[in-house]
Amino acid sequence: MKNLHDRILKEGKNLGRGILKVDSFLNHQVDPGLMDECGRELGRRFESVEATKILTAEISGIAPALATALHMGLPLIYARRTKPITMPGQVYLTTAPSHTRGQMVELMISPEYLSSEDRVLIIDDFLATGQTILGLARLAQAAGARVVGVGAVIEKTFEEGREALAPLEVPVEALAIVIDMSGGEIILR
Amino acid sequence: MKNLHDRILKEGKNLGRGILKVDSFLNHQVDPGLMDECGRELGRRFESVEATKILTAEISGIAPALATALHMGLPLIYARRTKPITMPGQVYLTTAPSHTRGQMVELMISPEYLSSEDRVLIIDDFLATGQTILGLARLAQAAGARVVGVGAVIEKTFEEGREALAPLEVPVEALAIVIDMSGGEIILR
Repeated sequence: MKNLHDRILKEGKNLGRGILKVDSFLNHQVDPGLMDECGRELGRRFESVEATKILTAEISGIAPALATALHMGLPLIYARRTKPITMPGQVYLTTAPSHTRGQMVELMISPEYLSSEDRVLIIDDFLATGQTILGLARLAQAAGARVVGVGAVIEKTFEEGREALAPLEVPVEALAIVIDMSGGEIILR
Repeated sequence: MKNLHDRILKEGKNLGRGILKVDSFLNHQVDPGLMDECGRELGRRFESVEATKILTAEISGIAPALATALHMGLPLIYARRTKPITMPGQVYLTTAPSHTRGQMVELMISPEYLSSEDRVLIIDDFLATGQTILGLARLAQAAGARVVGVGAVIEKTFEEGREALAPLEVPVEALAIVIDMSGGEIILR
């Protein structure tokens, strides 16, 4: 993923407190060619896990998860943070601390689209503390589904999300790994 | 777009008051193959407008807009409803009534990614009252950019969004057109 690394180093901004701004290609403006490349690579890394569905969280997870879903030919479900009027009364709901909002947020999915037959691959834009991803895993498990992998576009190792995900006992893949931002720069592995 | 029509008629649910639930392939679960087909067709319909950027609104617009962006090879910007900490202090902000939430919502974009050089194609999941799309058009115009087209996956003609968009004087395209839901069914043109 040389292109991804290059873009992070060229356009990423270290805003301090571990916040990496990549709004020019991932989180506000999206580069579709780069997303396609990320989706292809995540699909390749998870081709053996026999996933049946991809699960992500709105909002920023949707683009990389859709790109992955396209390459894997699997349906994508995005967990909602607020309940749309089209969602049934009974849902799977959990809460997770939002890294970028500094508060707890709700995550919910409808029981209509996940079942105990499903093998769920979780895809998100960032693997930071891992709390959003653990919330998604709880939703999948509430539906009786099995989580079979976790993929992220960018991991920040110093927030220790990979350690937090260890109890899931699934492969965890990240396409770019940021190991240090404490000095004002962005250091990739 | 026979596949889209078939899915709407087979899986769409008329929840009354003009609300069309298509959560199984567009708004909660997303069918990537169908999105790809929608993106290809929207790209074909707008190939002559010389767009430089695609603009949509989080959340449900992201999937069809990304699919269109992939086929057109254009960057996608999704307007945010809440301000992420990565967004600068000064933004373009407007408000629009949310059809499905029954309240006003904010829409904002960063000045970093739209300029007076841009020709903006607006893509959204639904064209209903047109108010979200008009909000996106105001954001583009605030940046000095020119709106050159509006595309939606599903139009509901009885909410008269197409009439509301007429002052934009741009081509408006929808891949499926629902003309009546008043009798409990879903009638496509």
